[in-house]
Amino acid sequence: MTANTLVNSKLVCVALNDKAQLAALDATFNEAPYKKPPTQPVLYYKPRNTWSVDGAEVEWAKDFDGNDVAEMVVGASLGVVIGKETCRVSAEDALNYVAGYTIVGDFSLPEASYYRPDIKGKCLDTSAPVGPEIVAADKIANPDALTVTISVNGELKSTFELGNMERSVAELISIISRIMTLQAGEIIAVGFAGDRVAVAKGDKVEASIEGVGTLTNTLGGA
Amino acid sequence: MTANTLVNSKLVCVALNDKAQLAALDATFNEAPYKKPPTQPVLYYKPRNTWSVDGAEVEWAKDFDGNDVAEMVVGASLGVVIGKETCRVSAEDALNYVAGYTIVGDFSLPEASYYRPDIKGKCLDTSAPVGPEIVAADKIANPDALTVTISVNGELKSTFELGNMERSVAELISIISRIMTLQAGEIIAVGFAGDRVAVAKGDKVEASIEGVGTLTNTLGGA
Repeated sequence: MTANTLVNSKLVCVALNDKAQLAALDATFNEAPYKKPPTQPVLYYKPRNTWSVDGAEVEWAKDFDGNDVAEMVVGASLGVVIGKETCRVSAEDALNYVAGYTIVGDFSLPEASYYRPDIKGKCLDTSAPVGPEIVAADKIANPDALTVTISVNGELKSTFELGNMERSVAELISIISRIMTLQAGEIIAVGFAGDRVAVAKGDKVEASIEGVGTLTNTLGGA
Repeated sequence: MTANTLVNSKLVCVALNDKAQLAALDATFNEAPYKKPPTQPVLYYKPRNTWSVDGAEVEWAKDFDGNDVAEMVVGASLGVVIGKETCRVSAEDALNYVAGYTIVGDFSLPEASYYRPDIKGKCLDTSAPVGPEIVAADKIANPDALTVTISVNGELKSTFELGNMERSVAELISIISRIMTLQAGEIIAVGFAGDRVAVAKGDKVEASIEGVGTLTNTLGGA
């Protein structure tokens, strides 16, 4: 399944990067134990077993006992493909480290909490298709001006303008490069619309960004 | 640095698997937002940029501005090396999927919280040496009977009997294999002593398990 994946070593996703979502969660964040919103980007990984490709079927998840789960959701993000070793770069310089852009789908279980790391819901086998291709960085004048849409069975379900991200693509690369060194071929999914889209078995999901392409996947289990 | 690493695709670590630590945190867990201890294993990944080897220098971590951090800590775990595709196996059958055993070091920033995913403190470059070798599974009669020790500059600082793990090696493999499919060569660090060991620049750290070996690393920055 992952033989031809566009990801070759690491897929880092940025959670909670939608300004509208942060505003909606503000009351929750001000409760215990934090009593304030996150001050740094909240990151999660999609590990190797999740990596998949354009056109592939995404497995319907199973619970602990092997029964089909009741609900799954999907989000989509611009995928920033790193072009060379990136360590402690400034935001001003960050886009010079980008080789290109693609689309990252993130199929998961609905998230009940924003506290404990949600490894279980995020690392489902085949849940992170990436593609359909990598578009060279010089073809995209301003990644923060792009819009990510998700359609299910041909019906538009989500529109996310990257101008509404809490942190820009360049800011994220700069911050993440101070947390861990990034290498060529690694991909950052920079932000998802706060409202994930509910999907059902057999659904056809298309994630699109103008100039980057359309990533198409079908849910299994039907 | 990672050219000869024993990890080839994924390093999953299990947090909070020390019974004594869970008991000590019981009051905290019974506060908001959870009001109960974790009911599932708490997992985290050490990504590719962290992978390192026996004998290597571990970089002293830097803060956002590039200044040396004040404190680092280390833990060590038995590393279970998966031998073949492992998906939804029973605890009874789980050890048949193990190729061998090694030692995983986990250098990190001290952890202030058990809620938000601590990506920043756990994914430091070169912070996860693995080794010194992989000992074949048939050489270890009962992995849960092993003891992990950490010495710093020749002085014993930590002793963790794996019999004090909340969940056994076989139970963990079974549970994790229901969350994500594991592949040959992937490694699970099954549990760390709850009390991490403080280290300083230039310290020599030895993590040992009888029959598995000694993993030796020196902190940089001195």
